[in-house]
Amino acid sequence: MNKTARPVESAGGTFHISDVYPSVDGGRFAVKRIAGEPVEVWADIYRDGQDVIAAALVWRHDAGGEWQRAPMTLHSNDRWGSAFVPDQPGRYVFAIEAWTDEFASWRQRFEQQQTTGSDLTLDAIEGAGMLTKAHAGGPADAAVIIKQCELYLATGEAGALLVPELKQAMTESQYRADLTRSPLFPLVADRPRALNGAWYQMFPRSQGKVPGEHATFNDCIARLPDIAAMGFDVVHLTPIHPIGQERRKGRNNAAIAQPGDPGSPYAIGSAEGGHDAVHPQLGTLDDFRAFVAACQAHGMEVALDFAVQCSPDHPWLKQHPQWFKRRPDGSMRTAKYRPQRWDDVINPDFAGEDAGALWHALRDVVLFWVDQGVRIFRVDNPHTEPLPFWEWLIREVQRHDANVLFLAEAFAQPKVMKGLAKLGFTQSYTYFTWRTQRGELEQYLGELIGYPERDFFRPNFFVNTPDILPFHLQSGESWMFKSRLALAATLSSNYGIYSGFELLEHAPIPGREDYLNSEKYEIKVRDWELSGNIKPYVTALNRIRRGNPALQQTANLRFIDIEDGNVIGFVKESVDQSNVIVAAIALTRDAREVWLALGDIKIGRDDARRSVTAVEDLVTGERYALEWGGVRLRIDPGRDPALLLRCVA
Amino acid sequence: MNKTARPVESAGGTFHISDVYPSVDGGRFAVKRIAGEPVEVWADIYRDGQDVIAAALVWRHDAGGEWQRAPMTLHSNDRWGSAFVPDQPGRYVFAIEAWTDEFASWRQRFEQQQTTGSDLTLDAIEGAGMLTKAHAGGPADAAVIIKQCELYLATGEAGALLVPELKQAMTESQYRADLTRSPLFPLVADRPRALNGAWYQMFPRSQGKVPGEHATFNDCIARLPDIAAMGFDVVHLTPIHPIGQERRKGRNNAAIAQPGDPGSPYAIGSAEGGHDAVHPQLGTLDDFRAFVAACQAHGMEVALDFAVQCSPDHPWLKQHPQWFKRRPDGSMRTAKYRPQRWDDVINPDFAGEDAGALWHALRDVVLFWVDQGVRIFRVDNPHTEPLPFWEWLIREVQRHDANVLFLAEAFAQPKVMKGLAKLGFTQSYTYFTWRTQRGELEQYLGELIGYPERDFFRPNFFVNTPDILPFHLQSGESWMFKSRLALAATLSSNYGIYSGFELLEHAPIPGREDYLNSEKYEIKVRDWELSGNIKPYVTALNRIRRGNPALQQTANLRFIDIEDGNVIGFVKESVDQSNVIVAAIALTRDAREVWLALGDIKIGRDDARRSVTAVEDLVTGERYALEWGGVRLRIDPGRDPALLLRCVA
Repeated sequence: MNKTARPVESAGGTFHISDVYPSVDGGRFAVKRIAGEPVEVWADIYRDGQDVIAAALVWRHDAGGEWQRAPMTLHSNDRWGSAFVPDQPGRYVFAIEAWTDEFASWRQRFEQQQTTGSDLTLDAIEGAGMLTKAHAGGPADAAVIIKQCELYLATGEAGALLVPELKQAMTESQYRADLTRSPLFPLVADRPRALNGAWYQMFPRSQGKVPGEHATFNDCIARLPDIAAMGFDVVHLTPIHPIGQERRKGRNNAAIAQPGDPGSPYAIGSAEGGHDAVHPQLGTLDDFRAFVAACQAHGMEVALDFAVQCSPDHPWLKQHPQWFKRRPDGSMRTAKYRPQRWDDVINPDFAGEDAGALWHALRDVVLFWVDQGVRIFRVDNPHTEPLPFWEWLIREVQRHDANVLFLAEAFAQPKVMKGLAKLGFTQSYTYFTWRTQRGELEQYLGELIGYPERDFFRPNFFVNTPDILPFHLQSGESWMFKSRLALAATLSSNYGIYSGFELLEHAPIPGREDYLNSEKYEIKVRDWELSGNIKPYVTALNRIRRGNPALQQTANLRFIDIEDGNVIGFVKESVDQSNVIVAAIALTRDAREVWLALGDIKIGRDDARRSVTAVEDLVTGERYALEWGGVRLRIDPGRDPALLLRCVA
Repeated sequence: MNKTARPVESAGGTFHISDVYPSVDGGRFAVKRIAGEPVEVWADIYRDGQDVIAAALVWRHDAGGEWQRAPMTLHSNDRWGSAFVPDQPGRYVFAIEAWTDEFASWRQRFEQQQTTGSDLTLDAIEGAGMLTKAHAGGPADAAVIIKQCELYLATGEAGALLVPELKQAMTESQYRADLTRSPLFPLVADRPRALNGAWYQMFPRSQGKVPGEHATFNDCIARLPDIAAMGFDVVHLTPIHPIGQERRKGRNNAAIAQPGDPGSPYAIGSAEGGHDAVHPQLGTLDDFRAFVAACQAHGMEVALDFAVQCSPDHPWLKQHPQWFKRRPDGSMRTAKYRPQRWDDVINPDFAGEDAGALWHALRDVVLFWVDQGVRIFRVDNPHTEPLPFWEWLIREVQRHDANVLFLAEAFAQPKVMKGLAKLGFTQSYTYFTWRTQRGELEQYLGELIGYPERDFFRPNFFVNTPDILPFHLQSGESWMFKSRLALAATLSSNYGIYSGFELLEHAPIPGREDYLNSEKYEIKVRDWELSGNIKPYVTALNRIRRGNPALQQTANLRFIDIEDGNVIGFVKESVDQSNVIVAAIALTRDAREVWLALGDIKIGRDDARRSVTAVEDLVTGERYALEWGGVRLRIDPGRDPALLLRCVA
């Protein structure tokens, strides 16, 4: 038998490194974090015997570069912790390294033996022998090692080997013969907008002032002051591309369009161009870039819709017929099997022989709009394209520009929605739009902010969408619109409205949760100052969100017990715990008083941690001192269904 | 760009397959099960879109052979389940396969479209076209496909394509173009003794009748009827090898042996041989084999101690000096740093240049004893040798003979003990030996039978060991010995006593949990019929264990609430739920009555499931009908601290 340090069949290293936190599906998918914020990392680390263990957290950009490292500290029960800061947006990998600190082990045994009075001459020689085998971690360490080695040789005193600075120098300078490294765990650090943003969705063609007339990007630019004044962060446009003529839909989803019907912007592509073209009636690509710049000037940014499907006259059908499946008669199948029976679009074939080129073309569409200054994409129905496609596309785009964010507009099974989040979507639509009862809101938020969901799923709460006018809004009552808005804007740090919500638009197709005369199929012109609008309320909420870091994140959320089951109460605190917000939001219209027990709430960290003594109403500015550990306050939903209180220590 | 079905950089298959149960550390370690018993397997499985998904559980022996498969069924929320039976002991791997049932998807869409009244001619042609592309799963399927294909061609009636037998045949016969397979998950199926056994540990040299005289294997054979009559399953011998002369320990762990002192059997090896030799005073290898055969004849089997350390005169020190580290003066370091300061043994060096040969030699020691008929090894202090060594050794030995079981005698940190179980030890010693209060017993059992521990950690509850005479036994009170025995024998399906327990031996080294005049350092001769012995009690407990499958497993355990905090109560049920046992065991000596609320206990499965109406005392045979949903019974620990009741429907 050959001399070997270990049989080749043997598995694993000296150490078991397990239960690594954070990780998603054991490292199969990336954990999500925000660039610049510390990432705590934990792992179980152990080996045989009693030797002194050392461990480090190592990390680097996924693309390469130098490994960085930070020591890990043993807390208890073989659980080690450390932290690192991914300083720039991007994809990172981290791992745990563990090794035996041989010199510290020797030192620990030596000190134990000293208490027994044994002759330790040989032990000291063994310890000294380790000094000459180290490869110094740096000049300072080398100096310490040389100095103590000389001192020991000159005096024969073991004390020279026991000085703490030598232990430290050796910890850095020893070979790590039994170093064991865990598998790599991926992590995506996004820019802050990934976690926090108020979205305003609109149909660009409806932003004009003349009824029946198709608006332009210039009309859209004219709308920005109003949207910015309401405090929105993201302006989300429905698709801006040419709309198919063939099989164009008419008003209210009629199978056949009437002359002059503009068609659905989700029927992408015509003789005028495809996914990388601008609808001529909106303007030119330059006009679009001007719109992007105007948004920036207002402190907002643009989110574009990315919908894969093609209208029957999309240029790709002629240019790349092999990307589409033919039926036995040579025709192409429309997407009529999709939930909403869209007969005006055709889905490309992701499993065809030339699918590789299709995948690349779709990626290039996204990169094209990135080149025009777009950094956020709201992806339409991503659960209808293959999961590996999205995983690949998002990786490719974010490799090109790590600031690009993707919102998954999927209302599918819970696990499919979570799967899309795992594979890379920055944010996700949720069931919030239909959750109205306190119990179901608490249960759903508990699921979204629990482990492991909080590490990969970032909710974006929409109160309505062009596809969803939920039943609870259909009576058009102002208090309900405000209640829903307050819930979305405070429960989730990402939330959005589809334009018209602020005007209390609520006319449904009878019996359904669809808008009557939906903008999807016609051009709308609105009076943005319509009487009864809740724009001041929207403005107040967005102002409060911007002023309170506690509301700029979702996971640090705790529900509080309120006796009245029609009022939902919760506490949110900022990452540094200095900003703590209490919310109590009415879910029915009656005015009432609520008792908020707030005695257990603390503000600040560590030594600076103090109990709350008062709360300040963030809308009225009034301050209420806690009495008997709480406050009794009135909610009148007719005026404002939400109490938003900042805790004061 | 080349035509490719998918960019080569893309990750994963069409399906996400995740949260696979059972698995340990995501498949890094093997799940433990019993051969012949069904293994339920669960996984989350989903893909994009609305197509019909099919999934299968596949498995085979780890060593190779044909894959076997069973269909998986969707339960709810994208969770799929199936089961397989690993019929023989051994290591298996299983995986989940998922694919799209294209024909069933077509059929589902077709039937949905039928309700709309659309023209489905093209759809029917598409479905028919799938028939000719199948490769029939078998002749019967082929016949169905051909027949329906002909019928459709002859009549043009789509109904020919919708018959259920065609759907079934196509499910079996289609190509599975998008088949996605999960990683492989390992599973070890052990023989039933891995899960259930009563152990009796003894020093073979102490089994004689003449004080001071070293016993032989023949003396051991003479002891077997007594041990078998008590109902034990496993006879565990401390090491049977030659004992070192050099640095031999004297009585009570004295540093220097007196002439005639036999030394510790854990100081393995002398000029007379090493780990593969028999201590000459015990007899020959043939005598040992006769002992193995005699155990078998009594329905018991032998467990051998496997301790890696060597005495200073072990033959390996001369034959393989490179397996041991030398100190600066040429001497070898004794294991004095080990917890019990064993100066009489030397640990080999697992990291030396020739460690590969050492690993193989140790494996060959185990295989040598397997050749002598031993199938159980109790490994001494495995947490002092490298974890990868044990993982490798156990795999190697079990590849040779899957019936070999390993018990880890590690009293280390919780995670190290669990790590040893994960890497392959069949059973584990536990902290039970020191857990005496109801709360701590409930907490500890909760941990051991919770997830994921129950899938890899099999406790073996020892009431005492040669190293541990726990304080609570030191007063020598019979009720306490009985209480501890009843707890061990009923809470855990694997339990053991170290001989002398049945005689209430309890003399400690004052102030310590060590036996005075420990057998580790001297030969003992006992009066096995000593007055006051609790052998009848041991016998009764083991009889009850053998008669009640509920007690032959550990995980199906639920604690019941008993008002008296000094009585612990629990219910155990057999895998088939037909045998249900209630235990109430007193933890203090006072007699008392306890109320056992048993109204929610059910017996049997599915339709045969019935409520319990009465309980039968398994010791006295008395039967008590439930009144007001429970029974009030008296426990008199002086007589018997345990109530063991079989539930009657």
